[in-house]
Amino acid sequence: MALTGILRPGLIQLRVTDLEKSVEHYVERIGLDEVGRDGDLVYLKGWDEFDHHSVVLRKAETAGMDFFAFKVDSDETLEHYRKRIEDAGVEVIDVAAGDQPGFGPRIAFKIPTGHRIELYAQVERAAYHPPVTNPEIVPREPRGMHASRFDHGLLYGPNVNETKDFFENVLDFSTAEQVDGEDNSTQIAIWLTCSNKAHDIAFVDYPEENKFHHIAFMLENWNEIGQAADIMSRHNISIDVGPTRHGITRGQTIYFFDPSGNRNEVFAGGYQYYPDNPTRNWTPDQLGKGIFYYERKLNDAFLSVVT
Amino acid sequence: MALTGILRPGLIQLRVTDLEKSVEHYVERIGLDEVGRDGDLVYLKGWDEFDHHSVVLRKAETAGMDFFAFKVDSDETLEHYRKRIEDAGVEVIDVAAGDQPGFGPRIAFKIPTGHRIELYAQVERAAYHPPVTNPEIVPREPRGMHASRFDHGLLYGPNVNETKDFFENVLDFSTAEQVDGEDNSTQIAIWLTCSNKAHDIAFVDYPEENKFHHIAFMLENWNEIGQAADIMSRHNISIDVGPTRHGITRGQTIYFFDPSGNRNEVFAGGYQYYPDNPTRNWTPDQLGKGIFYYERKLNDAFLSVVT
Amino acid sequence: MALTGILRPGLIQLRVTDLEKSVEHYVERIGLDEVGRDGDLVYLKGWDEFDHHSVVLRKAETAGMDFFAFKVDSDETLEHYRKRIEDAGVEVIDVAAGDQPGFGPRIAFKIPTGHRIELYAQVERAAYHPPVTNPEIVPREPRGMHASRFDHGLLYGPNVNETKDFFENVLDFSTAEQVDGEDNSTQIAIWLTCSNKAHDIAFVDYPEENKFHHIAFMLENWNEIGQAADIMSRHNISIDVGPTRHGITRGQTIYFFDPSGNRNEVFAGGYQYYPDNPTRNWTPDQLGKGIFYYERKLNDAFLSVVT
Amino acid sequence: MALTGILRPGLIQLRVTDLEKSVEHYVERIGLDEVGRDGDLVYLKGWDEFDHHSVVLRKAETAGMDFFAFKVDSDETLEHYRKRIEDAGVEVIDVAAGDQPGFGPRIAFKIPTGHRIELYAQVERAAYHPPVTNPEIVPREPRGMHASRFDHGLLYGPNVNETKDFFENVLDFSTAEQVDGEDNSTQIAIWLTCSNKAHDIAFVDYPEENKFHHIAFMLENWNEIGQAADIMSRHNISIDVGPTRHGITRGQTIYFFDPSGNRNEVFAGGYQYYPDNPTRNWTPDQLGKGIFYYERKLNDAFLSVVT
Repeated sequence: MALTGILRPGLIQLRVTDLEKSVEHYVERIGLDEVGRDGDLVYLKGWDEFDHHSVVLRKAETAGMDFFAFKVDSDETLEHYRKRIEDAGVEVIDVAAGDQPGFGPRIAFKIPTGHRIELYAQVERAAYHPPVTNPEIVPREPRGMHASRFDHGLLYGPNVNETKDFFENVLDFSTAEQVDGEDNSTQIAIWLTCSNKAHDIAFVDYPEENKFHHIAFMLENWNEIGQAADIMSRHNISIDVGPTRHGITRGQTIYFFDPSGNRNEVFAGGYQYYPDNPTRNWTPDQLGKGIFYYERKLNDAFLSVVT
Repeated sequence: MALTGILRPGLIQLRVTDLEKSVEHYVERIGLDEVGRDGDLVYLKGWDEFDHHSVVLRKAETAGMDFFAFKVDSDETLEHYRKRIEDAGVEVIDVAAGDQPGFGPRIAFKIPTGHRIELYAQVERAAYHPPVTNPEIVPREPRGMHASRFDHGLLYGPNVNETKDFFENVLDFSTAEQVDGEDNSTQIAIWLTCSNKAHDIAFVDYPEENKFHHIAFMLENWNEIGQAADIMSRHNISIDVGPTRHGITRGQTIYFFDPSGNRNEVFAGGYQYYPDNPTRNWTPDQLGKGIFYYERKLNDAFLSVVT
Repeated sequence: MALTGILRPGLIQLRVTDLEKSVEHYVERIGLDEVGRDGDLVYLKGWDEFDHHSVVLRKAETAGMDFFAFKVDSDETLEHYRKRIEDAGVEVIDVAAGDQPGFGPRIAFKIPTGHRIELYAQVERAAYHPPVTNPEIVPREPRGMHASRFDHGLLYGPNVNETKDFFENVLDFSTAEQVDGEDNSTQIAIWLTCSNKAHDIAFVDYPEENKFHHIAFMLENWNEIGQAADIMSRHNISIDVGPTRHGITRGQTIYFFDPSGNRNEVFAGGYQYYPDNPTRNWTPDQLGKGIFYYERKLNDAFLSVVT
Repeated sequence: MALTGILRPGLIQLRVTDLEKSVEHYVERIGLDEVGRDGDLVYLKGWDEFDHHSVVLRKAETAGMDFFAFKVDSDETLEHYRKRIEDAGVEVIDVAAGDQPGFGPRIAFKIPTGHRIELYAQVERAAYHPPVTNPEIVPREPRGMHASRFDHGLLYGPNVNETKDFFENVLDFSTAEQVDGEDNSTQIAIWLTCSNKAHDIAFVDYPEENKFHHIAFMLENWNEIGQAADIMSRHNISIDVGPTRHGITRGQTIYFFDPSGNRNEVFAGGYQYYPDNPTRNWTPDQLGKGIFYYERKLNDAFLSVVT
């Protein structure tokens, strides 16, 4: 018990249109480490992650996300969820071990928003990971924006309520926060968690299936958010909004874009969530303050620019 | 699944020798809210906690800790652990609902270090808690050191290895970090977690049973640690050590004393723990750096001053 | 020698349309102390200022600034500048001691932008000021946004080049930064300093005389900027832009509005200026990045909303 | 007028016993840039300094300081102070232009504590200095502890009262803070400023002449102080005390040692000083709190370990 089942967002594969510019962006600017390459694929990880890699860049014609995968705590848990997903009438696709270097078998399935979600239990430890014997705070000077981890993602698509139901009842997530629709009985946006974090994955209602809003990387605090903004401006990285704060999750944040137009976020803070906390509800008229607490209104891009 | 079973340290009862001075300390200086009083008992909570209260001060002849209690996620879980504890040959004592205002029934038991640990599943929501509809980041200006939550505790006693075994195998905790003894096969200190926090409770080997080292309150970041130090000096609160950082947990910290001599900690940061992380091991010669990363040696008080 | 002559912006009088709402804004929200009242005038100061008061709110029909005054280091300096101002062909008006409570005689004059600037040498020490014997870091808990001082102002008007000439050659200021006009020989904006601060007063070219852009209050750092933003949103204070950073001065900042529509700024950081530093020049195409380093473009309000 | 005369501490020459280890310490760890070398001399500067260099390391048998030099605003000022120093009965020694690469002529003299102080007016601009056209906040990623400038020094020697008199009356400094001796009429420690900084140079009474307590480098804020402490521990740099705060100046600080045993400080914050501020006085019984505000007592090293 304690922390079990689905543990965390552990792997995401993004499509980028220019691999070299993207590597410079994610490695030199955001601060991830390059773990390896294989043709049109580049494997990356944060300095504070133990697993082989967590972010994959795939060269493609158009930007966007291929899949979003969660690590589970054991092979038994993987089988447990395979059955529950199938019992929910959703097809499960098997992905063989080694499809991603260092990763064991994964199972994949499509959720009502049209996204491909995956689960896996086994992954090798990275060659470079946080030390475990008499560990230093930080093993070496962090780079760029100091991103320590792949933290969460926000996805756009239809059927947010069905997706909420699936994540809550099939995958055992909790809804930490939600934005009610005009009719109060459905939600237009949901923040889901399987941990003490205020969110591990989030969804916003959108007519088109399988759209990608952003991937978030964890920074330490508001000070690092400010330093990240300095770096973005020095290197002319396109900022969407921020530094600002989310009312929802309380996270301190900047949204910005990678060279292919995928939205990135650097994220710090956020409250400590527990599953006995009530779901926080936002009414549609306060959506702006919920998303951007300081601006108190959405910018045009938030609702329309996705990949 | 996800976050289940034992959720968090939810209640601690401390003995204080002067109730009024203690209330001033915990409310005006540390920033907890007073929820209620009943004779020699005062009930307190952090502004970011939902439950009725989390810290109890009891007027007594000597300082120290009466008990340390964890909230579990359901009545079924409470019964599950009652059985496992009894199966481990440990006596379980029932505490009736209402023994603490707002709390349902608790079960209590003695661990090998001699401390009284408790579990409970039910507690009323506090009258003043974080808002859940269109919530502001902070509902009102925080007070004093801005403590948001009761975070964790460190206890001293014998039989640390048996205690580690009990917490891991009976209560389903993980050992995030440990300090090996000279013989490498036993531990002289352990940091245990049931969550994404680097520790929820910790133990240090000590010849005397049932001693209390410190209670920790959560602050937001290193900046709040600095502000807390300013407040301590302005009000002549006795500082044990800090501001500094723990190598173990990476937490940023100050140890200080309440008016009765109980050690307090303000704590910020610390890495995000997952149960698939390896246990971090500290060798005895690096214990100083593990405990006080900047000083790189223990002060005399750390190993000897307990209540 | 060393720091002599004109020392600092020491007094500013603002027009507000609702005195009570304004006092709540400047005292409860920004954190200034109310020193006294006299009919339609309220006298305020920051907790870290020694002088009697530094900000005056005057109830009036329209918002804006009455005058902006600098403290000089002695009566001799006051007479020195009276002569230099008159020698420059500018009329000097005498204001009797006691016109402002606690203040000695002031001299007033109109600069080419149409603003009334004043100088004074004598002012009583405030009843509540930073302690001078065994001083604590902060004598008591700061309030609201923790504003410690009146820091600087930005004024709009015509004849910015003549104003630069007057401040440099008559009042002995330095131009720390400037934005060149399209013809490269004139400036459309100037940041002037008489100290180690990157600016003590600034001007932006504007067709209408005597307009007020903002008054700035000093905060300690980027963390306090973030806390100030939290307070603004919690109390629905209108934010113009920020939290962000100025390329010019490097200051970390939020622009927001008082209840009468006067723009306020909370400001932290900024480099340490010395008079042997070169003037930093901004080309017109980089004006956006100069003003708002993260947004890299001006918002509409910056160039048009003044009082 | 405004900021004139003696501008700032601009050059300090330190003796080190191992040049390579010292360069690694000051360049890789503290973050200064190496400007050039000449035999046993290495020239360094902070990234935010305009002048050719500010810190010189000289290989020698013993650690310590050769001299401490201030930049003045003009050749006329240099001659003005030459005369005043000579009028005070102190011998002035001329140092030819080019003695330090990039520097014009300097004048040197001995103060009552036995230290060699120098003044100079001319110095070339460094090849690498903060940009002056459309400047970025930081021209490139800072290194190590991110030291931006040589900030101040603290020197030990006898005759502190005569030294105070000399700095105030001959060199036009102000005493921002002082620690009274037991008899209340003399000072055992003084903090002197020629700027808006709370101190540019300080002295503590000590029986031996010409001793060096520390050189301080400026960091941005308390967050950078914490990061600097992380670096010190990761690289096993010997920390004297800190992270802590000075009651005197309010600066946030760490004292640590270079490989030769010279004490270094990283320093952030401190109030904004003006010459019309009263001198802050510390009584001998509060000296501990004045020096180390959080510890509220001196450590043994502060009064005895000098080079």
